[in-house]
Amino acid sequence: MTKVAFQGERGAYSEIAARRFFGDQVEPIPYRTFEEIFSSVERKRVPCGIVPLENSLAGSVLQNYDLLLRHRLSIVGEISQRIMHNLIVHPGTPAGAIRRVYSHPQALMQCEKFLGHLRKAEKIPAYDTAGAVKLIKEQGMRDAAAIASQLAAEIYGMQILQEGIENDPENYTRFVILSKTARVSRTAKKTSIVFSLRNVPGALFKSLSVFALRDIDLLKIESRPLHGKPWEYFFYVDFAGNHRDSNCQNAIKHLGEISTYLKILGSY
Amino acid sequence: MTKVAFQGERGAYSEIAARRFFGDQVEPIPYRTFEEIFSSVERKRVPCGIVPLENSLAGSVLQNYDLLLRHRLSIVGEISQRIMHNLIVHPGTPAGAIRRVYSHPQALMQCEKFLGHLRKAEKIPAYDTAGAVKLIKEQGMRDAAAIASQLAAEIYGMQILQEGIENDPENYTRFVILSKTARVSRTAKKTSIVFSLRNVPGALFKSLSVFALRDIDLLKIESRPLHGKPWEYFFYVDFAGNHRDSNCQNAIKHLGEISTYLKILGSY
Repeated sequence: MTKVAFQGERGAYSEIAARRFFGDQVEPIPYRTFEEIFSSVERKRVPCGIVPLENSLAGSVLQNYDLLLRHRLSIVGEISQRIMHNLIVHPGTPAGAIRRVYSHPQALMQCEKFLGHLRKAEKIPAYDTAGAVKLIKEQGMRDAAAIASQLAAEIYGMQILQEGIENDPENYTRFVILSKTARVSRTAKKTSIVFSLRNVPGALFKSLSVFALRDIDLLKIESRPLHGKPWEYFFYVDFAGNHRDSNCQNAIKHLGEISTYLKILGSY
Repeated sequence: MTKVAFQGERGAYSEIAARRFFGDQVEPIPYRTFEEIFSSVERKRVPCGIVPLENSLAGSVLQNYDLLLRHRLSIVGEISQRIMHNLIVHPGTPAGAIRRVYSHPQALMQCEKFLGHLRKAEKIPAYDTAGAVKLIKEQGMRDAAAIASQLAAEIYGMQILQEGIENDPENYTRFVILSKTARVSRTAKKTSIVFSLRNVPGALFKSLSVFALRDIDLLKIESRPLHGKPWEYFFYVDFAGNHRDSNCQNAIKHLGEISTYLKILGSY
């Protein structure tokens, strides 16, 4: 059984993604914060971790981009997980009895249209989605509902009153698998790097040209502030290719000539 | 007097930035949310608004990038404001009496080192920094402190027990001025645009080359998810130049040939 650290309570979307990625051979271990996952994997207390990097509606999980920079870990895999929110209650609770709805603030926001019909219900932010189910279960709240995954409803023996209550069904989260040991599979076809540049005209364009000149496709670019240097940035780039391929190696070497900092986060 | 909408309570850092930008001829009007500022300026209920776009430590204020896309407004100015956090109490309250510290979660995080010394004090997240001062003032909390600006302490007649308590003094927020009417000053030297691209190899590189080919310097790039198309993005680019200059006009025209959406947010 592979132990995998995930953030949140049992039944979190991260746990679902971990089970899909690793199959039956996984033992998901709940952690309270993303920071604790990065630290524990770095200290080899757990062989790997799974964290969200971006959501197709909300965008990048900036905290995890910052943590990737600070910790010596590799991205060794990724999985895109459809996020389907459900209205979860104690078995037998009718919709008319709901006075409060608990969930993570982002889930509450993503279900605003549906929640508009539950006019009498107050929306209350919770620590995480599955944790909201645990809360109404443990506190015996029969006049409350939680918004979370189907797995969370199953784990806590609760009932799904309405499934798929999100405004926009094109709701996916991209999770990455973190490990202390860089394992590059021959089939890896995507690479993530982070770099900073001298603050000179044309620097960003030149840095991206190292890929374009070699017909390497850029998949994503994200910028994060460089602390201590206001309005300078770290750039996180995902590109198509395995960093062991010669054209990718050449591009990275070329980028090394013009960057002030460069780190390969992983090929997967 | 120019009326300017800002988010938060009187004494917010946005109000300080508005006063520095407009001088004595300003009447800052407090608004509860960024969304209400955008809507009110768009409907001409108030001639302009001021909103933060990025902080040198925390990064971009993503919500305001999304609002720039949805509302028909122009950026007509910008100002970079040093953020100096202060520990604020009722006059006469000693440090040893403080049991709770209220502020915006980001301000609490930015003062973590200092707050480590106030071990007995619980950190409590508040709606905004100046609002936290108002709260402890109105509730008469003599065993509590707030973290906010010097202006907030003055407005509510409270005392600064310790100034400049932030971990990192290189803490600046870049605010922009929003208006319904695009006024482009001849001295404007920066332009902000947002665009989307066809999802084909090399598209991002080609889009940035329209600037590089004309020696136009890129100052910032930010990406935000394109709703309904998972893992496609809107790109927000700031570049050096006035969009009425011929080389910038040519670059924008060139970008128009390869983009699926293009909007000029303003030159300032």
